[in-house]
Amino acid sequence: MPKSFVETVVRRRPVHKGRAINFFVDEVRLPDGKRAVREYVDHPGAVAVVPFLDPKTVILVRQFRYPVGETTWEVPAGKLDKGEEPRACLVRELREETGYRARRLRRLVSFWPAPAFSNERLHVYRADGLTAGPVSPDEDEFIEAKPVPFAAALAWIRSGKIRDAKTTIGLLACALENRGRGRL
Amino acid sequence: MPKSFVETVVRRRPVHKGRAINFFVDEVRLPDGKRAVREYVDHPGAVAVVPFLDPKTVILVRQFRYPVGETTWEVPAGKLDKGEEPRACLVRELREETGYRARRLRRLVSFWPAPAFSNERLHVYRADGLTAGPVSPDEDEFIEAKPVPFAAALAWIRSGKIRDAKTTIGLLACALENRGRGRL
Repeated sequence: MPKSFVETVVRRRPVHKGRAINFFVDEVRLPDGKRAVREYVDHPGAVAVVPFLDPKTVILVRQFRYPVGETTWEVPAGKLDKGEEPRACLVRELREETGYRARRLRRLVSFWPAPAFSNERLHVYRADGLTAGPVSPDEDEFIEAKPVPFAAALAWIRSGKIRDAKTTIGLLACALENRGRGRL
Repeated sequence: MPKSFVETVVRRRPVHKGRAINFFVDEVRLPDGKRAVREYVDHPGAVAVVPFLDPKTVILVRQFRYPVGETTWEVPAGKLDKGEEPRACLVRELREETGYRARRLRRLVSFWPAPAFSNERLHVYRADGLTAGPVSPDEDEFIEAKPVPFAAALAWIRSGKIRDAKTTIGLLACALENRGRGRL
């Protein structure tokens, strides 16, 4: 970078401390010395997994997402507990939400869902070699796992039936690997 | 859906009203009648565009993202003004951030960056047939446009140099179209 675009904190103001996420409204100094306000979500990070039941079938979950007011189609996912390693979190969430355990896990990509207003980092994996077991969601989690043909899931991105970022990224990455016959 | 997973609002509580986004902490009724808290960002929605300078080169922008504390590589993007049509917003943001106007615009995909804690809907387009003009960013926007080989941008998703969701989704969708020789 020829120029520095860095913004430095002048005053950090927490406006809400939640169970899992916090809201901040910070005053910052811009590169030209002026002040500005930055509103953002402080998030612990999360993992998501594209579980392949066989090479042509993925497991997706249905759940109600209150902020968008809809029951969504998503890949299994969950927030990291404090200090938790992404892979351990993923194994736990996959088992809780779908009942499956995976013999093979591979990281596809990590991304920031919304770097303009959140520090969340999300790690997306692919799971293969699934073996079934009992489902055990969290007490206040209403969730249902469904097998979906991979080709249908891709078509649902086009049609708008799938609109979740981590699900879109995970499925597109797998589709690109399939067509390229190699890794992303 | 065999079962209803719908959560209904009991009490809506704004905890911060910002310039562009708001923070809410709502009390909701779960499907089993129990209560829970939902913390989320109220967002006006946004657009992003993958601008192709030629079939092998895209224009990306560098800017500092305070929440993640890094200068990022992203596609040009911006929040919708109240009542603004996505295409009009996109034309404005592309011109402001890169100076380019596009002869052809096509919607690739729309998605929710973070449906667990934000109602933002983001529409991603592809732009072709660019013509150069003057750059005119917003007053408090420090941003720099750079041409990047498309193959390098894809490699940057793998390496983690690109980590922004809309940029990742836009580039993967274009790559998939290229390999499939058709639309996503």
